[in-house]
Amino acid sequence: MARVTDDWYVACRSRALRRDKPMAVTLLGWPLVLFRGPDGTPGALLDRCAHRNVPLSLGAVCEGRVRCAYHGWEFATDGACKRIPVLCGDAEARGRRVPAFAVRERQGLVWVYATPDAAPAREPYVFPFAGQPGYTTVVEVLEAQGSMHAVAENALDVPHTAFLHGGLFRKKEGSGNDIEVVVRRWHDRVEAEYIGEPAPKGLAGRILAPGGGVVTHFDRFLLPSIVQVEYRLGDRSHLVLSAALTPVEDFVTRLFAVISFRLPIPGWLVTAALRPIARFIFGQDARMLTHQTQAVRRFGGEQYMSTEIDVLGPHILRLLRNAERGDRVPVEAPWEKRVTMRV
Amino acid sequence: MARVTDDWYVACRSRALRRDKPMAVTLLGWPLVLFRGPDGTPGALLDRCAHRNVPLSLGAVCEGRVRCAYHGWEFATDGACKRIPVLCGDAEARGRRVPAFAVRERQGLVWVYATPDAAPAREPYVFPFAGQPGYTTVVEVLEAQGSMHAVAENALDVPHTAFLHGGLFRKKEGSGNDIEVVVRRWHDRVEAEYIGEPAPKGLAGRILAPGGGVVTHFDRFLLPSIVQVEYRLGDRSHLVLSAALTPVEDFVTRLFAVISFRLPIPGWLVTAALRPIARFIFGQDARMLTHQTQAVRRFGGEQYMSTEIDVLGPHILRLLRNAERGDRVPVEAPWEKRVTMRV
Amino acid sequence: MARVTDDWYVACRSRALRRDKPMAVTLLGWPLVLFRGPDGTPGALLDRCAHRNVPLSLGAVCEGRVRCAYHGWEFATDGACKRIPVLCGDAEARGRRVPAFAVRERQGLVWVYATPDAAPAREPYVFPFAGQPGYTTVVEVLEAQGSMHAVAENALDVPHTAFLHGGLFRKKEGSGNDIEVVVRRWHDRVEAEYIGEPAPKGLAGRILAPGGGVVTHFDRFLLPSIVQVEYRLGDRSHLVLSAALTPVEDFVTRLFAVISFRLPIPGWLVTAALRPIARFIFGQDARMLTHQTQAVRRFGGEQYMSTEIDVLGPHILRLLRNAERGDRVPVEAPWEKRVTMRV
Repeated sequence: MARVTDDWYVACRSRALRRDKPMAVTLLGWPLVLFRGPDGTPGALLDRCAHRNVPLSLGAVCEGRVRCAYHGWEFATDGACKRIPVLCGDAEARGRRVPAFAVRERQGLVWVYATPDAAPAREPYVFPFAGQPGYTTVVEVLEAQGSMHAVAENALDVPHTAFLHGGLFRKKEGSGNDIEVVVRRWHDRVEAEYIGEPAPKGLAGRILAPGGGVVTHFDRFLLPSIVQVEYRLGDRSHLVLSAALTPVEDFVTRLFAVISFRLPIPGWLVTAALRPIARFIFGQDARMLTHQTQAVRRFGGEQYMSTEIDVLGPHILRLLRNAERGDRVPVEAPWEKRVTMRV
Repeated sequence: MARVTDDWYVACRSRALRRDKPMAVTLLGWPLVLFRGPDGTPGALLDRCAHRNVPLSLGAVCEGRVRCAYHGWEFATDGACKRIPVLCGDAEARGRRVPAFAVRERQGLVWVYATPDAAPAREPYVFPFAGQPGYTTVVEVLEAQGSMHAVAENALDVPHTAFLHGGLFRKKEGSGNDIEVVVRRWHDRVEAEYIGEPAPKGLAGRILAPGGGVVTHFDRFLLPSIVQVEYRLGDRSHLVLSAALTPVEDFVTRLFAVISFRLPIPGWLVTAALRPIARFIFGQDARMLTHQTQAVRRFGGEQYMSTEIDVLGPHILRLLRNAERGDRVPVEAPWEKRVTMRV
Repeated sequence: MARVTDDWYVACRSRALRRDKPMAVTLLGWPLVLFRGPDGTPGALLDRCAHRNVPLSLGAVCEGRVRCAYHGWEFATDGACKRIPVLCGDAEARGRRVPAFAVRERQGLVWVYATPDAAPAREPYVFPFAGQPGYTTVVEVLEAQGSMHAVAENALDVPHTAFLHGGLFRKKEGSGNDIEVVVRRWHDRVEAEYIGEPAPKGLAGRILAPGGGVVTHFDRFLLPSIVQVEYRLGDRSHLVLSAALTPVEDFVTRLFAVISFRLPIPGWLVTAALRPIARFIFGQDARMLTHQTQAVRRFGGEQYMSTEIDVLGPHILRLLRNAERGDRVPVEAPWEKRVTMRV
């Protein structure tokens, strides 16, 4: 289990965090309370009143401060205690602080830095193409019973699709196209480039790539928890599916998926057609992750055996373990390897 | 978690313990079986047959002995094995004993001494004014998900009432009466005396204190687990709410509340009017204790920060910790402190 | 808790294991997947894919190989990986094996040897009289919440029958027949022979032993987990109830009971009459075992006190503990002891 704490994770969508009441979220097993300060800027505190340890998320938000439901202590977004009813004298004192986490609100998401009372070492990830002219952007929030590492590998794994999602993504096994995969690993990300994937044939091909064209396909993992699948088909079709994974607990991962695309079909039509398919596929993956997780916990840990076609999983784990130790020293050129897959 | 074992706790009300069958209760996490001996005197044994460890409380009471449901072994209230069916020869033998706990039946309650096979170091608490001429006495049994210490503090805590029970007990915050509190701690108890509390106004005041009069208000904790709130209003109104707290498990506490009062209103009317209000208030407290307990367990322990208006909680914990170490050396004069509260 | 792993346990009935899909069973806490190979011979593997640890039992059986539902890896009954879809190159490799357990299919039951990747030190037990001319054989599968040792003792324990099943088996306590019991213990089994048990009287006696006759009654335990009750009544009535106990988990035991009998009444009539009675009695035992197990776990272990009428239980535990240490050195003559019981 790799826990990278000197980085940002998405806590919730902006629209889920109202101004009139606090919200409980869990990050890396820590209970947090989110609420909006006097000017609407979100704050995140440890969800435990400094006084008698009642969760602050049970209370109210009152002039941009979260107020405990038990004795009414009030805390600002920086964690300082600002008011204690019944007490004659000053409420604010060092020992009465609640640990506070840095927060950023960007692209409709609320990000929390995973170390309390710390100055962030970097800024949150910016989703490419989201909101860019010509692109349609859709956001989905999902949850899976699996470690962040298992969910990331699953999301970027090509070989299982023929099997688990057989028939949906690719032709049934045995059709046998050889595809070349180039894997490149930097200090903070790893990508797999698929070369020679055939363009869709028939009607779908004529619609998506009217003038024909080459398929470009990249799968990427970026520290601490971004998974990304990018497809280009000729000049006119482009799709980037990114997801910020949030390690809620060791074996619970939330996915904040941001899908941006530019296709020769209306965006609303793509969304309407693909959403049910995507949810069906995610359901199959979530079920498999649940079973995998139960087995891993029952046996007391992962005991994985990889082959060369597990192109990203082992690298993701390596990046996470390095980052957990604080090692993200930039590399001059990426490590690179070529593999052939028969799909 | 302070566990005081050389003292008495209430196991059940007398009327709950019948003569014809055993009763299972849990005290400090130990499963006990209670039953009545040949003359009706209650006994308490560890709820585990010496033979094959089946709970004795599953069995029957037979001529004042508890009989195991599995092989029919029979035990007296002192824990001795008196009969083993099928065995030719004497049933009684040292190794066949079940640990026995001292028991007292007083004021309609069955008390158990929390150390097995031990001569009690003291006698159980006697509830004042209960059954005394002119007084009405009411008993209630309640249960909360919280440590005994958390439940005791909650029961005697004044500051939270304005908040959690806002409007019921006291005026909404901000009305701002300054009240002086005198805290006195002996070796085995601590009390808070509230000076200057205003008498109820309007109709309630005219009924409860027809001739006017001063309010006297004491909150007390007495080892090992008695909480007590006493109010006097002029000459005619007097109310003592005592509760013996029983630590069922580390985070489950049962309350045996004994309320005795003498008021210028008929007792049945007081009871009828106050019971629903008392239950509503207890429901609010129980909910808060449950959340507090969940947070404390999730974080692996209490991390409390007290202020001067937490007048009893820290002293209760100190008394319990001293008593757990066996330290109850009588003091000549109480430790004393004065605090001001704005309620 | 004694765990004997160099021996055989019944995993399931033959008819429960189909050819077209895998089956999950648990043995000594280990999740196993059972499936039939190309010729129908059953195999048993650890239920965890070597690749990403998903339970193989979620997958399919395909030409006598179990196929993982996640990436489609296929394993033969010997645990070897035979196929990896998408991979160009050989699937089989040492590191891709799954631990395999020896399996035998005998008398309608599938037995598994409890050590993976090991050559069995012995063969499974053969049930006597099962399928023999003149005998009717009935099989029942039951489950109890109790350790294998507790279930075995319960199955062979005479004293509890007067109590727990009072009136069903024997006369109510107090009728007082003295019966002599001879206990004999070898290195791998222990038996109790009951001498002087009265033959059934009245109609039952005339039907079961038309010419009169002596009752012969043996109770036996044979390593690692066979319990056996054998009754003969005169020349014409003979009943052997054997059960192979399977330690599913430390406190869950499955019973595969094989009952063979030859009686002067039609077999179908015996079966029809006795099945509901047997289930009722087992229900009483199962309930008691559940309570016993809960108490044992709550107190952190068994704390048993035996008397001389616990004729087999302590010996069963001793045999199990010796066998767990690998000690089954044959003895020249059995250890023997005589006891009197009043039933």
